[in-house]
Amino acid sequence: MPKQRLLIKGGKVVNDDQSVEADVYVEDGIVQQVGPNLNLEPPTGLTVLDATDKLVIPGGIDTHTHMQFPFMGSKSKDDFYTGTKVKEEMKSLAENKGVNSFKMFMAYKDVYMLNDEELYAAFSCCRELGAVAQVHAENGDLIAQNSKKLLSMGITGPEGHILSRPEEVEAEATQRAITIANAVNCPLFVVHVMSKSAARVLANARREGKVVYGETIAACLGTDGTNYWNKDWAHAAAHVMGPPLRPDPSTPDFLMNLLANADLSVTATDNCTFDICQKALGKDDFTKIPNGVNGVEDRMSVVWEKGVHSGKMDENRFVAVTSTNAAKIFNLYPKKGRIAVGSDADIVIWDPKATRTISAKTHHQANDFNIFEGMVCHGVCVATVSRGKVVYEGGVFNVTAGEGKYVSRPPFPPYVYKRVRQREKIKANENDPAVLTKAVHAGSNSQLTINFARASMKHQ
Amino acid sequence: MPKQRLLIKGGKVVNDDQSVEADVYVEDGIVQQVGPNLNLEPPTGLTVLDATDKLVIPGGIDTHTHMQFPFMGSKSKDDFYTGTKVKEEMKSLAENKGVNSFKMFMAYKDVYMLNDEELYAAFSCCRELGAVAQVHAENGDLIAQNSKKLLSMGITGPEGHILSRPEEVEAEATQRAITIANAVNCPLFVVHVMSKSAARVLANARREGKVVYGETIAACLGTDGTNYWNKDWAHAAAHVMGPPLRPDPSTPDFLMNLLANADLSVTATDNCTFDICQKALGKDDFTKIPNGVNGVEDRMSVVWEKGVHSGKMDENRFVAVTSTNAAKIFNLYPKKGRIAVGSDADIVIWDPKATRTISAKTHHQANDFNIFEGMVCHGVCVATVSRGKVVYEGGVFNVTAGEGKYVSRPPFPPYVYKRVRQREKIKANENDPAVLTKAVHAGSNSQLTINFARASMKHQ
Amino acid sequence: MPKQRLLIKGGKVVNDDQSVEADVYVEDGIVQQVGPNLNLEPPTGLTVLDATDKLVIPGGIDTHTHMQFPFMGSKSKDDFYTGTKVKEEMKSLAENKGVNSFKMFMAYKDVYMLNDEELYAAFSCCRELGAVAQVHAENGDLIAQNSKKLLSMGITGPEGHILSRPEEVEAEATQRAITIANAVNCPLFVVHVMSKSAARVLANARREGKVVYGETIAACLGTDGTNYWNKDWAHAAAHVMGPPLRPDPSTPDFLMNLLANADLSVTATDNCTFDICQKALGKDDFTKIPNGVNGVEDRMSVVWEKGVHSGKMDENRFVAVTSTNAAKIFNLYPKKGRIAVGSDADIVIWDPKATRTISAKTHHQANDFNIFEGMVCHGVCVATVSRGKVVYEGGVFNVTAGEGKYVSRPPFPPYVYKRVRQREKIKANENDPAVLTKAVHAGSNSQLTINFARASMKHQ
Amino acid sequence: MPKQRLLIKGGKVVNDDQSVEADVYVEDGIVQQVGPNLNLEPPTGLTVLDATDKLVIPGGIDTHTHMQFPFMGSKSKDDFYTGTKVKEEMKSLAENKGVNSFKMFMAYKDVYMLNDEELYAAFSCCRELGAVAQVHAENGDLIAQNSKKLLSMGITGPEGHILSRPEEVEAEATQRAITIANAVNCPLFVVHVMSKSAARVLANARREGKVVYGETIAACLGTDGTNYWNKDWAHAAAHVMGPPLRPDPSTPDFLMNLLANADLSVTATDNCTFDICQKALGKDDFTKIPNGVNGVEDRMSVVWEKGVHSGKMDENRFVAVTSTNAAKIFNLYPKKGRIAVGSDADIVIWDPKATRTISAKTHHQANDFNIFEGMVCHGVCVATVSRGKVVYEGGVFNVTAGEGKYVSRPPFPPYVYKRVRQREKIKANENDPAVLTKAVHAGSNSQLTINFARASMKHQ
Repeated sequence: MPKQRLLIKGGKVVNDDQSVEADVYVEDGIVQQVGPNLNLEPPTGLTVLDATDKLVIPGGIDTHTHMQFPFMGSKSKDDFYTGTKVKEEMKSLAENKGVNSFKMFMAYKDVYMLNDEELYAAFSCCRELGAVAQVHAENGDLIAQNSKKLLSMGITGPEGHILSRPEEVEAEATQRAITIANAVNCPLFVVHVMSKSAARVLANARREGKVVYGETIAACLGTDGTNYWNKDWAHAAAHVMGPPLRPDPSTPDFLMNLLANADLSVTATDNCTFDICQKALGKDDFTKIPNGVNGVEDRMSVVWEKGVHSGKMDENRFVAVTSTNAAKIFNLYPKKGRIAVGSDADIVIWDPKATRTISAKTHHQANDFNIFEGMVCHGVCVATVSRGKVVYEGGVFNVTAGEGKYVSRPPFPPYVYKRVRQREKIKANENDPAVLTKAVHAGSNSQLTINFARASMKHQ
Repeated sequence: MPKQRLLIKGGKVVNDDQSVEADVYVEDGIVQQVGPNLNLEPPTGLTVLDATDKLVIPGGIDTHTHMQFPFMGSKSKDDFYTGTKVKEEMKSLAENKGVNSFKMFMAYKDVYMLNDEELYAAFSCCRELGAVAQVHAENGDLIAQNSKKLLSMGITGPEGHILSRPEEVEAEATQRAITIANAVNCPLFVVHVMSKSAARVLANARREGKVVYGETIAACLGTDGTNYWNKDWAHAAAHVMGPPLRPDPSTPDFLMNLLANADLSVTATDNCTFDICQKALGKDDFTKIPNGVNGVEDRMSVVWEKGVHSGKMDENRFVAVTSTNAAKIFNLYPKKGRIAVGSDADIVIWDPKATRTISAKTHHQANDFNIFEGMVCHGVCVATVSRGKVVYEGGVFNVTAGEGKYVSRPPFPPYVYKRVRQREKIKANENDPAVLTKAVHAGSNSQLTINFARASMKHQ
Repeated sequence: MPKQRLLIKGGKVVNDDQSVEADVYVEDGIVQQVGPNLNLEPPTGLTVLDATDKLVIPGGIDTHTHMQFPFMGSKSKDDFYTGTKVKEEMKSLAENKGVNSFKMFMAYKDVYMLNDEELYAAFSCCRELGAVAQVHAENGDLIAQNSKKLLSMGITGPEGHILSRPEEVEAEATQRAITIANAVNCPLFVVHVMSKSAARVLANARREGKVVYGETIAACLGTDGTNYWNKDWAHAAAHVMGPPLRPDPSTPDFLMNLLANADLSVTATDNCTFDICQKALGKDDFTKIPNGVNGVEDRMSVVWEKGVHSGKMDENRFVAVTSTNAAKIFNLYPKKGRIAVGSDADIVIWDPKATRTISAKTHHQANDFNIFEGMVCHGVCVATVSRGKVVYEGGVFNVTAGEGKYVSRPPFPPYVYKRVRQREKIKANENDPAVLTKAVHAGSNSQLTINFARASMKHQ
Repeated sequence: MPKQRLLIKGGKVVNDDQSVEADVYVEDGIVQQVGPNLNLEPPTGLTVLDATDKLVIPGGIDTHTHMQFPFMGSKSKDDFYTGTKVKEEMKSLAENKGVNSFKMFMAYKDVYMLNDEELYAAFSCCRELGAVAQVHAENGDLIAQNSKKLLSMGITGPEGHILSRPEEVEAEATQRAITIANAVNCPLFVVHVMSKSAARVLANARREGKVVYGETIAACLGTDGTNYWNKDWAHAAAHVMGPPLRPDPSTPDFLMNLLANADLSVTATDNCTFDICQKALGKDDFTKIPNGVNGVEDRMSVVWEKGVHSGKMDENRFVAVTSTNAAKIFNLYPKKGRIAVGSDADIVIWDPKATRTISAKTHHQANDFNIFEGMVCHGVCVATVSRGKVVYEGGVFNVTAGEGKYVSRPPFPPYVYKRVRQREKIKANENDPAVLTKAVHAGSNSQLTINFARASMKHQ
């Protein structure tokens, strides 16, 4: 079989650490050369993409659409937390299927919600397997109680959704998840951080050295929760998701600043689109409105517009938060998340000077509403390369169903776990009880005492 | 029966708002006059206390020794959270016994610990009864898991106590309790705030307008958690209490600054003293060491020394945090917490210039250890008056068992509840669903939308 | 001359610590009795004010209109900071005129602005005299530079005012003033705290034990800085003041929460009203628009509406922030700031149930614009008593020019200075160089070392 | 001339984004190949360094020893801030000498200290030239006043140094520098961040999107300010530097956490070593003790020990903070700061398993004291390569004086300036006065108003 050969010419290759003018040559889905003015022989059988005046960037990794815990949704919650069977299942997924992260819910009481004891067990299991624990952080008990109360007051519309899930509900759960994960030295990945207060909790924990990463999503960078009071029910319902968008209009800028500053690590979409008919299930009861908004298609544009065009971050940080960081956290780097010799040729050709206007009329998704309707975006994707194949160019898709390829992810991502393991090694020495208890109370070693105090002291 | 008459002469009367040179005249346990150079006729039958160069201050109110939820300890936890019976019991205590606060535990799993749903119910009930919810804020699940792990590692000594209950465990629970209480508009009183991080959580909540009060205790103002690594087991064990003292040596100063600044409201002792034989129950297992330290006797001295003598607060703030604030929060003010015409004559004569050294050798408590051993305190209590009777003077006690008098406390303390009720009134208007749902989605009233947004928005 | 006698009947007397149903009897300007159902004999010559269903509250003290440093405005700045002459003048004002606070400007470069060295000297002088240093905290250098740049860009309208003075300019100066004042142990009173970030700086300093008080003003509790972009020049210009109102719409709620929580201490007006003709001086140059807004007349209503009616604070805290705290800080308490036997009869009769709408059409001030135009206020002043005389009742004023009386304020207000003096006493002992230098470096006393370390350590 | 050829075999190449087992081949000072099992032909003339079980890391860049503003120290301060001459000089240095950063002092009153107006001018000039402004942030006025007072009290020893420069003095100046730099959109690099409070100011500014970078130094990661009270004068004096080390013992861990978390960016030494005879100049006056401590030689070891060995950061973050970030900020990347094809062969061979004990007895610096005396460090440098030449190996140096090579640094480092330029471009559009003033006050464009409000609004 002839090799599949691709040359991306004349563009600027943007990685998370720098941008350079360079061509990119790809064979059989793998980047072979990156450099200026590449001359490829023979010219026959070579697809050439002209990227003059364009950026050549690593393909976006959407942590939230691609990396969901496989059995959520399809299996009942009972399978999850009831003891050893599930632990075995997690182990099997990690060892045989290349799964290295698991998602836990603190919301959705009586369906998915885990209590603190169950979280502790799940996080411990993740730690043992070398996985990254993902968590949906909202206090499910409070949401359930608030919802009941609001419905009893006669508040049934989409505004009930946000009233039942104020910021505190998210911030509280975020703090709790971090505390529990830290108690078992399990790296934590908080999905869809939606509020200033939850983001602040997470950022503060990072300042204290906790191994925790935050993801935010396109929806809350590009719009806000005032939409829940829109007079058009369908409009309001289209924004229903959990956690909800926040009515505080300074939220999007705040979150973008934290992405720029590395307090938050990645952007995703949490894409889960329902059309108006599906949303209408909750016509008389906001708790029955299916949770989900669009986003996959527009994520890159929204992050570019609000992040790069605004001057909050540069193109390199854009690559970090849309691709590189996710690849590092989930152990795909540098196969994914970087354009370099040896990496997978998942590449986006980006025109930073073009503009487009987001609209449900022109988007490629099936549903009839777009939460970013009317947003003018500087920065447009002009072509997409997936493992060396041009799957989108100039408005035309060229994909065959089933072409997606599952990527196995080994456990213990070094980006995440190097620190964790070293800490445990050090701590084990300090806390060796054979030495310790004797030393402390039989009287020989004050240094140990100090180490101990430091281990448990919270440094502000 | 002749009247019981007392004149306190020549002192400086210190209330929480000012200090004035004045005599205090008491009849039958009630203050009758406060003013300079009182001349009382007839002089016969008049007890005179000379307070020249002394301070005359309202008797200390120890929120934690006197105001514990009555059935804790003596009844099993089952009586508390299992549904309506307990709600009835709380109602009865409030209505018939003058109880206006109830204490809930988030620690002590499988004994007292309430989960979030139970807390929600308990706080709702407090709100309905006009009571103040008290909470012991530590994450009981984490403590249980940590303890199990430490014991399995062979760590059995008192240092296990602190290692199983790091600051995060307290801070997390504090944030959770505040979030839940706020969801039901229930005023919250966090007992024994012991750490910088928990205190910071509480102080931040107050900045956001939440109705929450913090108590700290003499033990963590006067000593710290480095004692848990003392080589003498008995010394270490004597400091075991929950939440534990913190190893961070800047904790006492930090908490005192927050008391001075009104971020924390009251000081207590959480007095619960066990002698060395009792503590020895936990000789081989730190989880079995009875939790409790001394404090009642030395509270005023420790707070004075670390607060007033150090210059962190003045004598008026001292009165506020040892007496007045507690009286206001628990609806005893101005009968208690103030020396004024009509108030109860619970009075301490305080010599701010005398010094004494705290020691187990000289204290009046039964146990054999004092956690403040050797502390030189400026400021000494020279006499104590209880409802007009001199019960202590110059080292000599004059108390008869059973003289204590139960003080009934009406519900809905105005200091606490005025704001709570007004907020609910305003919110009810804004959220009236008859008006609201119609207005929002049928299109007439944008002002409502705004009010709504504000109601659920978190103001930073 | 017959005595001037006044009885206020049937109201609820509201002080900062509690509210009680009581009559108030006044003779010759001084409160003589406070109690239920007073019977005054003889009834002749007795003015009676019916306060049934009304609140009887201490007259508001406007720290910013009444307590300005006397020679600001009328004398040149040269008199102030140029060395000993001014120090003598300050001393003379303090000793002979009963002035116990002085205001310093960090803004208004080349006019009033003091640099750091001058501030240090002025604060040192205040400390010596027992005065409270007041400070207008904005970085005057930055304002001057920003203004120059904006004008050069052609931005001349009122929006230039806010663009030249962003929040950081206020927050920076606030932090600097606190740092310098703290270095010389001088109590600091920051006038017109206008922004969230400046308020946060101040609140954090208080948490660290610094002796600093914050005043905010009616304007920034009742409206915001979006007005600077109003299309009507006159409207925009009418809001010009320094520091400016803030465009962040969550500012008013934030500041009110801090007033409620005691992080801020008093409300004032900074009243300084110019009519449209005067404002027009800055038609072509925003730096020439006279700085000032109305407020005196509406302060109490605005604070009540946004603070008490909203449920953020109760009526007692309202009294604290409009009257009592100012009286304490400036050493007028309890003559002012409290309704009690012996206090001055400066009293307001307040109807908490009445409403009125603020408007320039009905207000009593001379100017033609009201920044609170259209605000519906619950809570209306129905009568005002000044030193026992009814000066306003039911819409009618009864004042003669020159009736105001200057109140002498002794130095060293105990509310402010008790702590300051005690700290210095303690520190002097610790730092006695005769003992210290010898001890530290000649080797005898490790306790001193520790005290020292603590003295200079910043406790978080 | 034959090529200089070097092969580093068998090691693990550690860059800031990942670690890989690879050989490194160098020709004439430039890295030519990085890959596993390189076979270089011919073998003659090839120097081989065996790096088996070792780490191969980019050479450390010490921002503070190598990159000082050239005329500081040798020229008087007058040359700097007095108007156009200096601006011309800065321009000339930038354009002709490849200088892209300038250091400004806020301390050292009457010598180097700039006031706010001068800082504004200097930062503006840096912005214009595309330079990074460096700042020594301490309030020089306060230090001068404090020192005078302490000396007058008789405090002359090294403890006076720290007492004259408490944390607030550093935090205040840091906030001021950031505020001024931000006003002119000048990127700021704060040298030697030494305290928790200053670091917190800087980290908070970054969260708000300000372009500011923080450097900390080995001294304050490896020891603390309690040394100023050491009884041995020489010991105490050896620690004198500005800003001083902090007595708060939790400072080193706090700063290391911020380095790990990216709130701080680089580590340096501020190396400036004086021996005991030189320090003795300040025997009777702490202000005369030459400021400076050792550090160059031990920086890497101290950062490794406290950062990597402790588990706070991994080896990749270690490379970032000791090398890569500095290279990016000062526009040397990827020639410096990375081991990759085309980069300069400045390489350290690091044995992460070896240990050594720091001591003045064995160090290679000329002075007689080491502030890290006795620290056991895991991680030892076994060889150093400078532009392809082995200059140190196994304890033996092989350097000729004058071999250092000046590296020209172009202005406008993209890592720093991309955001800055984009922000200005966007802002210029929004603020175009031709459009703006007309639009705002003549009534056509509310969008502009909103942009404006956003521009000046502080997002929390």
